[in-house]
Amino acid sequence: MTDGSGEQIHALIARLYPIGRSITGEGVRKTFDILRELIPLETCEVPTGTQAYDWTVPKEWNIREAWIRGPDGQKVVDFSEHNLHVMGYSVPVHTRMPLAELKNRIHTLPEHPHWIPYRTSYYRKDWGFCVPHARFESWPDGEYEVFIDATLEDGSLTYAELLLPGQTERDVLFFAHSCHPSLCNDNLSGLSVLTFLARWLSDRPRRLNYRFVFAPATIGSITWLSRNEEILPRIKYGLVASLLGDAGHFTYKRTRAGEASVDRAMIQVLEDRSTAFDVVDFLPWGYDERQFCSPGIDLPVGRLTRTPNGKFSEYHTSADDLEFVRPESLAESLDVLKRFVEVIESDRVYVNSAPKGEPQLGKRGLYGSVGGYQNIETDRLALLWVLNLSDGRYSLRDIVTRSGLSHDAIDRAAEVLHQQGLLRET
Amino acid sequence: MTDGSGEQIHALIARLYPIGRSITGEGVRKTFDILRELIPLETCEVPTGTQAYDWTVPKEWNIREAWIRGPDGQKVVDFSEHNLHVMGYSVPVHTRMPLAELKNRIHTLPEHPHWIPYRTSYYRKDWGFCVPHARFESWPDGEYEVFIDATLEDGSLTYAELLLPGQTERDVLFFAHSCHPSLCNDNLSGLSVLTFLARWLSDRPRRLNYRFVFAPATIGSITWLSRNEEILPRIKYGLVASLLGDAGHFTYKRTRAGEASVDRAMIQVLEDRSTAFDVVDFLPWGYDERQFCSPGIDLPVGRLTRTPNGKFSEYHTSADDLEFVRPESLAESLDVLKRFVEVIESDRVYVNSAPKGEPQLGKRGLYGSVGGYQNIETDRLALLWVLNLSDGRYSLRDIVTRSGLSHDAIDRAAEVLHQQGLLRET
Amino acid sequence: MTDGSGEQIHALIARLYPIGRSITGEGVRKTFDILRELIPLETCEVPTGTQAYDWTVPKEWNIREAWIRGPDGQKVVDFSEHNLHVMGYSVPVHTRMPLAELKNRIHTLPEHPHWIPYRTSYYRKDWGFCVPHARFESWPDGEYEVFIDATLEDGSLTYAELLLPGQTERDVLFFAHSCHPSLCNDNLSGLSVLTFLARWLSDRPRRLNYRFVFAPATIGSITWLSRNEEILPRIKYGLVASLLGDAGHFTYKRTRAGEASVDRAMIQVLEDRSTAFDVVDFLPWGYDERQFCSPGIDLPVGRLTRTPNGKFSEYHTSADDLEFVRPESLAESLDVLKRFVEVIESDRVYVNSAPKGEPQLGKRGLYGSVGGYQNIETDRLALLWVLNLSDGRYSLRDIVTRSGLSHDAIDRAAEVLHQQGLLRET
Repeated sequence: MTDGSGEQIHALIARLYPIGRSITGEGVRKTFDILRELIPLETCEVPTGTQAYDWTVPKEWNIREAWIRGPDGQKVVDFSEHNLHVMGYSVPVHTRMPLAELKNRIHTLPEHPHWIPYRTSYYRKDWGFCVPHARFESWPDGEYEVFIDATLEDGSLTYAELLLPGQTERDVLFFAHSCHPSLCNDNLSGLSVLTFLARWLSDRPRRLNYRFVFAPATIGSITWLSRNEEILPRIKYGLVASLLGDAGHFTYKRTRAGEASVDRAMIQVLEDRSTAFDVVDFLPWGYDERQFCSPGIDLPVGRLTRTPNGKFSEYHTSADDLEFVRPESLAESLDVLKRFVEVIESDRVYVNSAPKGEPQLGKRGLYGSVGGYQNIETDRLALLWVLNLSDGRYSLRDIVTRSGLSHDAIDRAAEVLHQQGLLRET
Repeated sequence: MTDGSGEQIHALIARLYPIGRSITGEGVRKTFDILRELIPLETCEVPTGTQAYDWTVPKEWNIREAWIRGPDGQKVVDFSEHNLHVMGYSVPVHTRMPLAELKNRIHTLPEHPHWIPYRTSYYRKDWGFCVPHARFESWPDGEYEVFIDATLEDGSLTYAELLLPGQTERDVLFFAHSCHPSLCNDNLSGLSVLTFLARWLSDRPRRLNYRFVFAPATIGSITWLSRNEEILPRIKYGLVASLLGDAGHFTYKRTRAGEASVDRAMIQVLEDRSTAFDVVDFLPWGYDERQFCSPGIDLPVGRLTRTPNGKFSEYHTSADDLEFVRPESLAESLDVLKRFVEVIESDRVYVNSAPKGEPQLGKRGLYGSVGGYQNIETDRLALLWVLNLSDGRYSLRDIVTRSGLSHDAIDRAAEVLHQQGLLRET
Repeated sequence: MTDGSGEQIHALIARLYPIGRSITGEGVRKTFDILRELIPLETCEVPTGTQAYDWTVPKEWNIREAWIRGPDGQKVVDFSEHNLHVMGYSVPVHTRMPLAELKNRIHTLPEHPHWIPYRTSYYRKDWGFCVPHARFESWPDGEYEVFIDATLEDGSLTYAELLLPGQTERDVLFFAHSCHPSLCNDNLSGLSVLTFLARWLSDRPRRLNYRFVFAPATIGSITWLSRNEEILPRIKYGLVASLLGDAGHFTYKRTRAGEASVDRAMIQVLEDRSTAFDVVDFLPWGYDERQFCSPGIDLPVGRLTRTPNGKFSEYHTSADDLEFVRPESLAESLDVLKRFVEVIESDRVYVNSAPKGEPQLGKRGLYGSVGGYQNIETDRLALLWVLNLSDGRYSLRDIVTRSGLSHDAIDRAAEVLHQQGLLRET
C-alpha cells in the first residue's frame, strides 16, 4: 500500500491538507509525524533567536481560532473553515471596527471572486484575513468584531531530514518546502512525492548518499545551510521539488552555473520521455534554489516542477486544492525522479582499455557475424559510442548527450563492455 | 539654446554645411572654430610630410574658385554653387579642351541624374568635376574652358581634441571624421551630435575620462594614433560616430574582438529602447574603426550609425543634404549616446557582503511585508539578481545582460543595496 | 588519357568492377596492379595471424567457383555470373539439402526483389548465397546441390600505399577501403577518384606530404595504424573518401574533435561551390573514420562522400553498379578533392608588417586613386581582411571563415600583400 502509486501519493496529500502549516508551529510537526510513518525522518528544532547568516529564527506562531462577526453578530469568515482565511503569522487581536477600517485588513482576489488568496506577514507584526472577493463584496456596512487567538512566542523552527547513505563521498540533495498551509500543489506535492521517492530509495543499493530535507521556505533552507556548511562540498547534485501534481508538463530550472551534472542528467531524463517539457535558465526568484544558488553557497541545485510558480492562476490560492493535483501527474513526477536517481546512480567515467581502433566486438559475441546490412541497431551503435568516447573525459551521461541515444541504451552498452573487460572505471 | 535639442543639432549642421572641407585646409579650421563656440576643443596642426606609421601627412589643399565654361562662354558648372562640384584635392588647372576629352574628368551618377557625386583623389595628383548626370547630358559638343584655382602646398593636417577628465585611469574615445565637405549625414551629424554630447558631459561628474577626437578619415585617425600611443592602453571603450541623422534605425558595428565591454554596453542600450536596431560584426571596411581595430592597435572601438555607409543611395552625394538629416533622428542619436555614457559610467563590479543565502531584505524595508503574491515586481527582482551575481565576476552591465532587466532597474537596485551595505565595490 | 575526366574515372571503375575482392585475396592484388598502371603504389603483405591491436589478420580467402543446382540439376545461381552471389568468406562446401534447409543460407532483399544483397562473414566460419528475392521465390521444393570451391588458408592481407613527399613535416592522409567486390560507388569510386587525385598531385609542387592508403575496411585501417604509429603525429589533415559517384550532393562528416583544420577547410571548399551540401557530426559508425577517430588514435580525419552509407537503397546491393555511378559526379568529386588540396596547400599564417592602422595601399597601386564610391570591390575588401586578421592567430583559412569571402579572393590578396612586403610568413 506504500509503493508510490499516484493514488497513494494523493491520499498522503489529502491527509496533510487540513493541517495548518507555517514557517514554524505545531502544524509543521504534525506534518512530519505523518511523513515519519513512511520514512524515518529526523526532525531538528532550531530555537527562536538563532542566527542563520543574515537571518534570525523568528518566534513560533500557533493559531487556535479566528473569525469576524458582522454587524448582525453572524460569523462572516471563520478560520475553522479554511486555513487560508487568516494571513500567516497574524498577531492576536480582539476588537471591533467599522467595515471602512476593516477592509484594509481584508485580502481578496477580484479576478477570481470565489477563491481565497494566500498571504503571510512573517517579519512584520500585522494581522489580516483572506476571503473570497464575492463574499467580501456582500458584507454590509456597519461594525464588525474581529478575533484572532494566536500566539507568537519563543519556540523553534522545525525541519526534517533523512540521510540514506551510499558507498561514496558524493551527496545528492532533495529539498521541498514544508511551510505552506492548505495548498496542495505548493507544496504538499513536493513533500509527498519526495517522501515516496525516499521510501523507494531506502530499499535500493546506492552508490551516492541521499539527503532529503523538508524545511520552511527561505528561512528553513537558510537555517539548514548555516548548520550544514561542512557537508556542502559533497553535494554533487541537488533538486528542489515543488508543484509536482498539476496537469501541466515538466519545467526544469537550471542551476546558477547552468551546465552542471544535475542539469545534464535531468534534461536527458526529460528528453528520454519524448513528451513536451521546458527548460528555463536560473533566475533568483522562485523557491529555495535561490538560497542554494546564492553566490556564497553556489551549489549545483536545480529545480523540478510541472507548471512553475506564478504561471497558473490557482497558485497561492484556495483553488490549489485536492482536485487541482492529479494522481497520474503525481505518479509521473515520482517516475521522473526515480529515473533521475537511476541516471545519476549509473553515471561513471570509463576508459576504453582497447582504445586504438575499435576492439573486435564480433569475437566477443557483441556483433552480428553476418555483415553488409544497411543500418546498425541502436544497441550496437551504443557500444561504438561508449567505446569511442570513453577516453576519460566523457561520463556515461555525457555520452548520452553527445550520441543522442537514450540513457538505457548507453548504460546497457557500458555494462556489457565492462563485463567484457573493454572498459575500466577511472 | 545649447542643450542639444534636435533643432539645435540641426542648426549647427546647417552652419557647417556650406563650408568646404577636406582632409586638410581652411575649411576644417573654420569648422573647428564654430564647434569651439560650444566646447573648448584644442586643435592640433601636424605639418605636411610628417610620418604617421605607413602614411605621410599630405600637402594642404585649399580651393578658391573653379568652373567650366561651355562653348558659348557660359558657366556650365561652378564650384561656388556646391562644394561637391570639384573632386577633392584637385590640382590647379586652367585649360581648354573638347567635350570628348573633358568627359573623362566628369563624374556623374547616371542612376540618380539630379544628384552630384562626392569624389576625391587625395593621393594621386589629378583633377575632376562632379555634376548631375542630367545636366552633363545636356552639354553640347565643342570646346570647354576649365579653371580650378586651388593650391596644394606644404601646410598641415588639422585635428581637434577635447579631454574631459574623470576620476579614474580609464578612458573613453569618441571619434568623428571631419573631412567631408557639404555632406550632412556623413559626417556633420557625427561631429554635431558628439559636440553636444561633449557639452552635456562637461557639466556632469565623471568617473571615466572622455576623449573626443575630430579628425579627417583614415589619415587623421592614423595620425592621431601615431601621436598618442602612450594613452591607448587606457582606452576601455571607444565609439566611432557617424551617419546619425537619417530616418533609419540604429546599426551598431561590433569591435574587432566582438565581445568587448563597449559591445555589451551599446547593445544593451539599444535593446532597452525596444525599437528595431541592427548589430553587425566587425568588417575592415567603413570608417575609422578600421584604424582603431587594425591588428597592431586593436582597441575596443565599435561604431554607431543609423543606416550604415553604402546602404542608402544618398550616401556620398549631394542628396545627403540638410533635408536628409532630421532633427528628431539627431536628438534620438544624442539620447542614445548619453544613455551609453550613463551605462558605462555606472558600471561597477560589486561583491555581495552577505553572500550565503539571500540577505533579509524585509528587515531593511526593501521587500513588501506581505508575502504570497503571484509575481515579483521588477525592482525586487533586480535586487535579487544583483545580490545573486555580485560574486566579483559580474559587473553591473553583465548582470543586465544575464538578467534581461534594464540598465535602470539594475543600477537602481545596486545603488540601494550599496547604501544598505549589502554590496561593496571591488 | 589520364587527366582525370569523369569518363576516365568511370572507365577505371569499369575495369575494376568484375574483379572479386574481399578483405584478403587475389582480387585485391589484381585491383592494386591495375591502379599501379596510374600511380606507383607500394603494396604491403601482412601475414595471416599478425596481431593488429585487438585484431588478428585473418586467413586469406580465395574463391574459384560456386553454384547451386536445383532439383532438376540446372544451376539456379552461379558465382560466375556475379561476385555478390556468394557471401564473402564463405567456407568450401559441397553437399545436398532440401530447400527448407537451404533457405537459411540464402540472403535476399524482399523490398528490392531483383537486386542481390552484399553479405559477408569474415570472422565466423559460415557459408551462404545471395540471390534476387524474385528468383529465390521461384525455386521449387526439392533437393538442391550446393558447391563452393573456396580456400581459407594462411596467406596475407594486402594494402597499398603511396607517399608523395612535400617540403614540410606535415602529412595529409587520404584513405579508401579496397575490400568491396562488385560494388561501384562503395568503394570503387573512392579508390578511383583518389587514384586520379594522386596522379594529379604527383606533378605538382607540394608543401605537405601526402599519404594515400588503400586497404580493406576495419581490419585494413587497423592494421595500417598499428604498423605506422610513429608517423601518426604528423597527420594534420585526413580524409576517408567513399561513395563519390552517385547523383546526390556532398556530405562531409566532421572529425571526432569536430573543429579541426580539415573540417574548416573542407566545409569552406563546399561552401565556395554554392551548391547544396550537408555537414554531419562525427558518429562512430560508417567507414574507416571510425578507426582513425578511435579514442587512442584520435586523428583529425573527416570523411567525404556524396549520399552517405545507408541513405540510398542501392547501398550494398547489386544495384550499386556501373550505371549508378556517373562520370559527371566522379569528375565533380575529384574537383572538390583537388580544391581541398589547393586550400590546405595554400594555408599560411602571416603577420602584417605594418599592423598599426591600415598601410597605405594607394601608394602601392592596390587601391583606386579616386575615392568616394558607395561600395568596395571584393578584391580590395580581401586585402583589408587579410591585413586586419594577420596578427599571428589567424591562418588564411581562418580569414576565409571569418570574412565570408572565398578562398580564391583571400589567397590572391595574401599573395599580393606578400609580394608587397606587407605580410611576412610566421
